Amino acid sequence: MRGDAVLSKYWSNVVRQLEPYIPGEQPKDKTYIKLNTNENPYPPSPKVIQVMQETVNESLRLYPNPACDELRVGISQYYGLTKEQVFVGNGSDELLAFSFLAFFNPGSPILFPDITYSFYPVYAALFNIEYQLVPLNEDFSISVNGFAEKNGGIIFPNPNAPTGKGIALTAIEEILKHNADQVVIVDEAYIDFGGESAVALINQNPNLLIIQTLSKSRSLAGLRVGFAMGHKDLIEALDRVKNSINSYTLDRVALAGALESFNDEAYFQDVRQRVIATREKTVARMKEMGFIVIPSIANFIFISHPLLPAITIYQQLRQKDILVRYFNKPRIDNFLRVSIGSDEEMECFLQAVAEVIQKHTK
Amino acid sequence: MRGDAVLSKYWSNVVRQLEPYIPGEQPKDKTYIKLNTNENPYPPSPKVIQVMQETVNESLRLYPNPACDELRVGISQYYGLTKEQVFVGNGSDELLAFSFLAFFNPGSPILFPDITYSFYPVYAALFNIEYQLVPLNEDFSISVNGFAEKNGGIIFPNPNAPTGKGIALTAIEEILKHNADQVVIVDEAYIDFGGESAVALINQNPNLLIIQTLSKSRSLAGLRVGFAMGHKDLIEALDRVKNSINSYTLDRVALAGALESFNDEAYFQDVRQRVIATREKTVARMKEMGFIVIPSIANFIFISHPLLPAITIYQQLRQKDILVRYFNKPRIDNFLRVSIGSDEEMECFLQAVAEVIQKHTK
Repeated sequence: MRGDAVLSKYWSNVVRQLEPYIPGEQPKDKTYIKLNTNENPYPPSPKVIQVMQETVNESLRLYPNPACDELRVGISQYYGLTKEQVFVGNGSDELLAFSFLAFFNPGSPILFPDITYSFYPVYAALFNIEYQLVPLNEDFSISVNGFAEKNGGIIFPNPNAPTGKGIALTAIEEILKHNADQVVIVDEAYIDFGGESAVALINQNPNLLIIQTLSKSRSLAGLRVGFAMGHKDLIEALDRVKNSINSYTLDRVALAGALESFNDEAYFQDVRQRVIATREKTVARMKEMGFIVIPSIANFIFISHPLLPAITIYQQLRQKDILVRYFNKPRIDNFLRVSIGSDEEMECFLQAVAEVIQKHTK
Repeated sequence: MRGDAVLSKYWSNVVRQLEPYIPGEQPKDKTYIKLNTNENPYPPSPKVIQVMQETVNESLRLYPNPACDELRVGISQYYGLTKEQVFVGNGSDELLAFSFLAFFNPGSPILFPDITYSFYPVYAALFNIEYQLVPLNEDFSISVNGFAEKNGGIIFPNPNAPTGKGIALTAIEEILKHNADQVVIVDEAYIDFGGESAVALINQNPNLLIIQTLSKSRSLAGLRVGFAMGHKDLIEALDRVKNSINSYTLDRVALAGALESFNDEAYFQDVRQRVIATREKTVARMKEMGFIVIPSIANFIFISHPLLPAITIYQQLRQKDILVRYFNKPRIDNFLRVSIGSDEEMECFLQAVAEVIQKHTK
C-alpha cells in the first residue's frame, strides 16, 4: 500500500514522516526456494503442533491470561530466572517497539551500529528517539569503544544482522559497565545458532535487557512469539507499555505452543545443530567458489564475490526461483544475506550460484 | 506487577507517568460465573475450530502474510467494501492504539465521552495526546452538540461502553459532517448485538474510521483479532504505523480462523440472536426487581438499584462466585456492568441478585 500514496490531511505528523520497515518478500506467484527471511527449514516440534491442535477448542471464546503466567514461568525455568524477569509478546519486533517506548527518551540520542537490523531506525522515527550510528569495525565486528560515548541507551544484535557476526560476552560486559545508567538491549534473535546468550549477565547487570524470538531456532515464525529477559524493573516497564496498548498480545493457541516448545529440548537441539551443520558445509563451498564469507553464528550467511556485483547475483538467482536478501545500503551494497535452508535447498542454491559465477566470469 | 513498584531510573519519561488499563480479572483460584469481561457464552463456530486445527501444521515455520490479504478480502466482501478499505490487527485494542498514533497529534486535544471505554485516556497518555471529555447527557446518551467544539479528532463507541447505549446513524452523520477535517473513530466492538453499523457511511465520509472485533459477537476473545474499516488513506496510515512496530501482528492460525468466522454466517446470526434474547429476558427480570437498567444494544447491561449500593451488590455476588464489573468512577459508581451469559448463567445471576436484595432490604 506504500509508495504511491498521496499524503492525506488526516494523517498525524508522526505518520507523515514514517519510513516503515519492509520485510523480506513473501511472493505467491510461484514456488521459490526462500532463503530471504531467515525462516527455519525444519518444522516446529510435533509436540508443539499437537498441543496447539488440542488448544484450538471452545475455550477460544474466553480471553487469554493477560499476564501470560504459564509461558513466563516456562521460559524463566528454562533460563534459570524468575517469572518476574521474563516478558512475552507478539514476536521480538513488538518487544523491540515496546522497549523503545519503555527505555529511551526524545532528546537523548541512543546508539546502535551503522550496519544492523534495519527496524531500529524505524522505531526511532516512530517514537521520536534520536540516534547516532556506531560504525562497525572494518571486519564488521562491533566496536566496543564506539559504545563508550555519552548516550540515552544502546541496542545491538548478537549475532549482528545482517552480518551474522557474534560479539563476545566479555565485550558485552564492558559495554554494560560503561553504561550503567542506561538500558543496553541485546537483541538475540539468532543466538541459538552458535552464540552465547548474555542471560548469564542479567543478575549482575540491572541495565541489561535481552530479547529473543521463537521465529528462528524454534521454527515458529508463523506463530508470532518473542520474549524479553532482564531485571524485574525493566520487565515491569515493558508490562506497563503493553497494558497501555493491548492487554492481550498473545492468543491462547500461541501461548500453549510456545510453552511446549521449551519442553521439547531434544527436538530444539536437533534442529539447531542441523542448521549449524548445513551452514558450515555451505560456508566451505562458498569459499571454494571465491566468495568472501563473514564468519556467521546465525542461521544466515553474509557473502560477497570479488568479481561479480551482489545485485547481479541476486537478480540472477531470482530468475532461477531462488530468493535471497539484498540491502542497497552503504558498506553492504555488495553483499547478500542468505538464509540457511535444508541441505537440499542449499545444494540447489550452490549449484545456481556456481552457474551464475561461471556465466559472468568466463 | 503494578502498584507496589518503585520507579526505576531506567524507565523512560513516558513509562513513569503511565496509568495502564486494567482488564477485568481472570481469577484462577476457583470456578466463577464470569460476567465481567463481556465474553460470549457460546463457543466459536465449529467450522472456525476445524479450519484452525487444520492450519496448525508444519507451515508454522514460515512467516504469515504480512499484508493479511485473504482476511482483508474476506471482511471487505462481507461488508461491501474493497480490500484497501480494511485493516486487521491483534484485537481492536491494538487498532485503537495504532489509530491514536496515526490520526491524533500532541497539542490538538481530541474529544471523547466522559463515560466511555477506559482505555482511551490510557492511549492518550502513552502517546502524549491531550483530550477533553464530552459529558454524556443525563440519560447517558452521547451529546452530539458536545462534539461540535474545536478538536483534533473524535472517538466514541457505538454502542457506548460501559452503558450499552446506542447512537443513531443520523447523529453519527451529524458528527462526521461537523468535523470534516478530523478523523472520527467509531468503536463498534459491540455493534452486532443490536446496533446499526456506520459502515454504510464510509464511502461518503473519508474521515470515518470504524473499529470492530471478533472477540465478542464471534466468540473469539482468545484469538486476538480486530479490524478497522474506512477510506483507503486512513487504512494506509494504520498500515504505516503497523509496519513501524511489527510487520506480522496476526499469526497463521488466527488469520485462518478469523476468515472462516465470516464464512459461517448462519452460526454468527444464531449466536448473536441468542445473546440478544437472553439480554431482553434478563432486562425484564432486573426491572421486576426494581433495578434501573440503561437500554442496552450490547452483550452487557448497565444496572443500578435505588436501595442497595452497586459496590455492595458487586461484593456479595463475588462471594457467591459470580463476577461482574464495578467501576469506581464519577457518575457511574453506583452502577454495575453485567455481561450477558448463557440462559443458565443468567438464571444463577438473577437468583443470586434476588437473594442479595432480599437480605439487605428486608
